[in-house]
Amino acid sequence: MIGLSSYAGVMDSLMNSAEEQQASSPLTNSWSKIQESSKNQKPKGVGGFVLVHAGAGYHSESKAKEYKHVCKRACQRAVDQLKAGALAVEAVAAALVELEDSPFTNAGMGSNLNLSGEIECDASIMDGKSLHFGAVGAISGIKNPVLVANRLLSEAQKGKLSAGRIPPCFLVGRGAHDWAVSHGIPPCPSEKMATKFSLSAYKRNKRKMELAEKMDTGQNQTKKRRQSSENENGSGCLDTVGAVVVDLEGNVAAAVSSGGLAMKHPGRVGQAAHYGCGCWAENACNMNPYSTAVSTSGCGEHLIRTMLARECSAAMQSEDAHQALLEAMQNKFISSPFLTSEDRVLGGVIVLRCCRCVEAQPSQNIQGILVEFLWSHTTESMCVGYMSAQDSKAKTHISRLPPGTVPGQSLAIEGGVCRLMGVVE
Amino acid sequence: MIGLSSYAGVMDSLMNSAEEQQASSPLTNSWSKIQESSKNQKPKGVGGFVLVHAGAGYHSESKAKEYKHVCKRACQRAVDQLKAGALAVEAVAAALVELEDSPFTNAGMGSNLNLSGEIECDASIMDGKSLHFGAVGAISGIKNPVLVANRLLSEAQKGKLSAGRIPPCFLVGRGAHDWAVSHGIPPCPSEKMATKFSLSAYKRNKRKMELAEKMDTGQNQTKKRRQSSENENGSGCLDTVGAVVVDLEGNVAAAVSSGGLAMKHPGRVGQAAHYGCGCWAENACNMNPYSTAVSTSGCGEHLIRTMLARECSAAMQSEDAHQALLEAMQNKFISSPFLTSEDRVLGGVIVLRCCRCVEAQPSQNIQGILVEFLWSHTTESMCVGYMSAQDSKAKTHISRLPPGTVPGQSLAIEGGVCRLMGVVE
Repeated sequence: MIGLSSYAGVMDSLMNSAEEQQASSPLTNSWSKIQESSKNQKPKGVGGFVLVHAGAGYHSESKAKEYKHVCKRACQRAVDQLKAGALAVEAVAAALVELEDSPFTNAGMGSNLNLSGEIECDASIMDGKSLHFGAVGAISGIKNPVLVANRLLSEAQKGKLSAGRIPPCFLVGRGAHDWAVSHGIPPCPSEKMATKFSLSAYKRNKRKMELAEKMDTGQNQTKKRRQSSENENGSGCLDTVGAVVVDLEGNVAAAVSSGGLAMKHPGRVGQAAHYGCGCWAENACNMNPYSTAVSTSGCGEHLIRTMLARECSAAMQSEDAHQALLEAMQNKFISSPFLTSEDRVLGGVIVLRCCRCVEAQPSQNIQGILVEFLWSHTTESMCVGYMSAQDSKAKTHISRLPPGTVPGQSLAIEGGVCRLMGVVE
Repeated sequence: MIGLSSYAGVMDSLMNSAEEQQASSPLTNSWSKIQESSKNQKPKGVGGFVLVHAGAGYHSESKAKEYKHVCKRACQRAVDQLKAGALAVEAVAAALVELEDSPFTNAGMGSNLNLSGEIECDASIMDGKSLHFGAVGAISGIKNPVLVANRLLSEAQKGKLSAGRIPPCFLVGRGAHDWAVSHGIPPCPSEKMATKFSLSAYKRNKRKMELAEKMDTGQNQTKKRRQSSENENGSGCLDTVGAVVVDLEGNVAAAVSSGGLAMKHPGRVGQAAHYGCGCWAENACNMNPYSTAVSTSGCGEHLIRTMLARECSAAMQSEDAHQALLEAMQNKFISSPFLTSEDRVLGGVIVLRCCRCVEAQPSQNIQGILVEFLWSHTTESMCVGYMSAQDSKAKTHISRLPPGTVPGQSLAIEGGVCRLMGVVE
């Protein structure tokens, strides 16, 4: 069963979403997709757009304000960058820094602790223009893992290293930490990255684990595993954060950052560091009419094995964005042949797709970027925020599964459309 | 320009490959693809098949005998397993252990040393039946990284851990090492994994690097990088090893293992640990008529960014296997939009695809598995070996680019067909 929230055709009507609306192609309005031949005319003042998330998981009402607030700040950071002329990839990194710095999210500061009580983070970033990618996995002692991923990306764009060595796109563990420090990214003592909340959650989880193992003593190992899978993890905090951005030139970028699952084994790397799984960004090209950017959140192993970011990106090339994402989440995630043994498939995505468009009438010199933005999740909730650089008004929202639906087996999907307009001179 | 070697329609005529042959569908012979309805009848005695490679890179004539010999032993190990009734995933792991144990390959024993003079290995394995995947990255002090990847895969198949924790599919660094040891895989002192050859190569590379950096002093950084990319790495040893197997039930599996690029930064993880990039295996299902298994070798960053294993696997669902692989290597690798900034795109793949088939006449009770196996590379050479469990005769071959073609811009492609026959009772 699919829990389907409304999908509005224009940005301003997005959040009054009680009624069910038919998703209509926004291009059937007074706007039409621009021809290839006129794509090189760059309209002035189209700004840019950012969509962020503070995780697919469970967001308590008591902390809703905090989650929304960090999303708002992250949007503002990206928009500040866009207004200063930054490319999408820089703006998306700026948004991530803000999300990582919040003690309420499971990324950077305040990340989940692993089995040994340490923080090990994953992060990655992809630039839709160059199609370059940078990632770090299981990195400790760095406040903003996304900045290391971004630096790997930018270093790789410079070409080969001395003696023809190919620059790395993915570094892990101690090596990643040392590379970061040698590239001017300051280390941060691990104890400063843990928060009261993450430390108390660790103690609680540890007790729970010890209790579960004690209760299972003497029981059959398989039975033990089955049982425990029934009653846990359906509403765990899986608050990987992420963002997707389109800049004023129409370039897209995506990024993701995570402290990983609570009580994970040291060295475990989740989807946030995995190419095609945590984030994806691809500018429009001959084969693809739309630029797309995706960032995922949720259970890393599920997101890795389904390559959800790349699958959603590929799906978004079909005409109806809302229907395409719905089908991708249903067929490539919840009902994926790669996850048949899983009882609950937990995750969420934010998606952005855009194309250049032109106002059909009355004036032909108004052009812009048509941005469709969506989010969908199978977890109980997902906190998102978005902002256009044209009006700088952040909107935030905690999306929840429709009442009566089961996390991991149902989904929510919402979104909107934003037109970034400008005059071609 | 494509350097195209011959492709023979039956296994025995494979290696006399001077003349160009038109690739014809092997199903147009006296064999036809079996109907879905009769797929459950299991013919007895069909054995299984293994294809291994000792890397795409440069294989000197002086060591050709050694490379072929290790491929032969790896095939034998897999076939021994298949004959004992092992599933494809166990057989492919056995082949990898033999490849890792050879001091001549860049995997396990004798791996390339990194910038700090240490060995850090990547490996992964995928089971086409369960679609489970296990991987380790930048792991030190373990003689056979593939066994850790395989153990991760089999542990994940058992379901959740205590307190509902999801088992990891990818571990890196120190955490991966400790997990392996705690699961009964013995540690191996790093100094035992280095060989005379790998140590002298390290010293030589280090001198070369220092010289290159000294020569570049005072030059513009960009210029330096451009220059060095022109004259290096076209024929570097990139000997990641791998194998693909089909077992007597028709299940496929794939695995890959690598010491990574010489003089890589500590913590760098290459394609061998990357889902969809190093190996891929998928049994036939409703949507896919063929079971496919792929293992890749070459420059990790190129193989990651093109997700070559998964791309080749997907391509192999079209009718003509040879043409499909040729187009995948050309369009998804050499001319990939993800690698436009690279002057030379270096890699190789081994591919296996199979389907159940039946002898059209005279006897309908002879069924079997039709196995098409191919390899293709853009590097100067690639060493492969293959063996059917029915005749246990290993064949080995060092494939080279056609004379006059440029590594990284051209490709070689070869392969064969093997029918594993059995009587349905």
